[in-house]
Amino acid sequence: MVPDPPARAVALVSGGLDSVTLAHQLAAAGTDLELLAVDYGQRHRRELACAAACAERFAAPYHEIDLRAVGRLLTGSALTDASVAVPEGHYEAPTMAATVVPNRNAILLSVAVGVALAAGIDTVATAVHAGDHAVYPDCRPEFVAAFEHMARVANEGVGPGPVRVLAPFVHAKKHEIVALGARLGVPFAATWSCYAGGERHCGRCGTCVERREAFERAGVADPTEYEVR
Amino acid sequence: MVPDPPARAVALVSGGLDSVTLAHQLAAAGTDLELLAVDYGQRHRRELACAAACAERFAAPYHEIDLRAVGRLLTGSALTDASVAVPEGHYEAPTMAATVVPNRNAILLSVAVGVALAAGIDTVATAVHAGDHAVYPDCRPEFVAAFEHMARVANEGVGPGPVRVLAPFVHAKKHEIVALGARLGVPFAATWSCYAGGERHCGRCGTCVERREAFERAGVADPTEYEVR
Repeated sequence: MVPDPPARAVALVSGGLDSVTLAHQLAAAGTDLELLAVDYGQRHRRELACAAACAERFAAPYHEIDLRAVGRLLTGSALTDASVAVPEGHYEAPTMAATVVPNRNAILLSVAVGVALAAGIDTVATAVHAGDHAVYPDCRPEFVAAFEHMARVANEGVGPGPVRVLAPFVHAKKHEIVALGARLGVPFAATWSCYAGGERHCGRCGTCVERREAFERAGVADPTEYEVR
Repeated sequence: MVPDPPARAVALVSGGLDSVTLAHQLAAAGTDLELLAVDYGQRHRRELACAAACAERFAAPYHEIDLRAVGRLLTGSALTDASVAVPEGHYEAPTMAATVVPNRNAILLSVAVGVALAAGIDTVATAVHAGDHAVYPDCRPEFVAAFEHMARVANEGVGPGPVRVLAPFVHAKKHEIVALGARLGVPFAATWSCYAGGERHCGRCGTCVERREAFERAGVADPTEYEVR
């Protein structure tokens, strides 16, 4: 499923089920991974703990970068601004636009490319997927292509070769990622999706709704404990 | 010199003479500015103090973002890694490659675009110039174009309009920037170029050599105190 898997890659891992499955998929393909997680002032650290646990499973170098100073300036998104309510309901509903962090994936991927090149690695990997296209313009295939082109131009002659951006899920629906993860033995209980930041997944926010649906549609048992079923 | 100047812009200002002149040029064109400076673990804070002073002259909002966590991972560059010597000699010499920070301008501009959009501003400005092309691939016109395209795709439907990246010096030589700055009344003594981090400009590093040459070629009095003349 990863054509021509790279020898080494820096994978952006949030600790959610998509990015953790991405790391498992690359590791299974023989790629030597470094994991990069970003603290941009999320409402909770549960996701980041799941990212760190993922790195431990592969004994992969794990870099958690403090970008809270950036997050504080990207006000207006429910994910970084405590004054904006986390929207409930379906993931693709217009209200989910409140969770858009302006230019987020360009910032994260730009940092990942810098970290990769400094380590002599030419490939970065991101778990953007088709279910995000309706809400997040920076999860679409045209963004991945435009970003890869920009990164190649930006670093021509720097690093081991032209920058490659792997986004193997960019055309996949979330239930297909769950099915893949199940085949790869991903410990889904050690992934975190909920935006709300409680003790357990709330079961009501857009990403909880999406997570539950994905397990159901994939026909995979969902180990997640939700506050509301 | 700035065609169709924007009503508002976020300008990346390092405190060097190019970016301070950029801010003066935009302010003179009537653009309402916010200044963004980045602490990525430079060897000294003199540049940042010059950026803050520039913002004060225009009573412009000034954001200094702490990206030292990123800078620490971008090892191998003389600008961020204390174990790498600052190269001396001419700015365009191959040894200046030691001052390349991988993907630097993509990281800085990505953050600037995020900050701008969150503030309802669609334009970011950067002082990349033609004298940098030989050493820094992310200072070339093709980078600016690729970045602008990427940022538009990344943020389609987010913010007030398509992202615009202003780089009015991208075809200018540094002495032309000095000449422009002199016409605009830029207080050049309140700008900082030296990479070495001493009390005064060292006069020996590539950027000091370039700065001196630029004043000479422009026929503008150089107010800089250099340790070595």
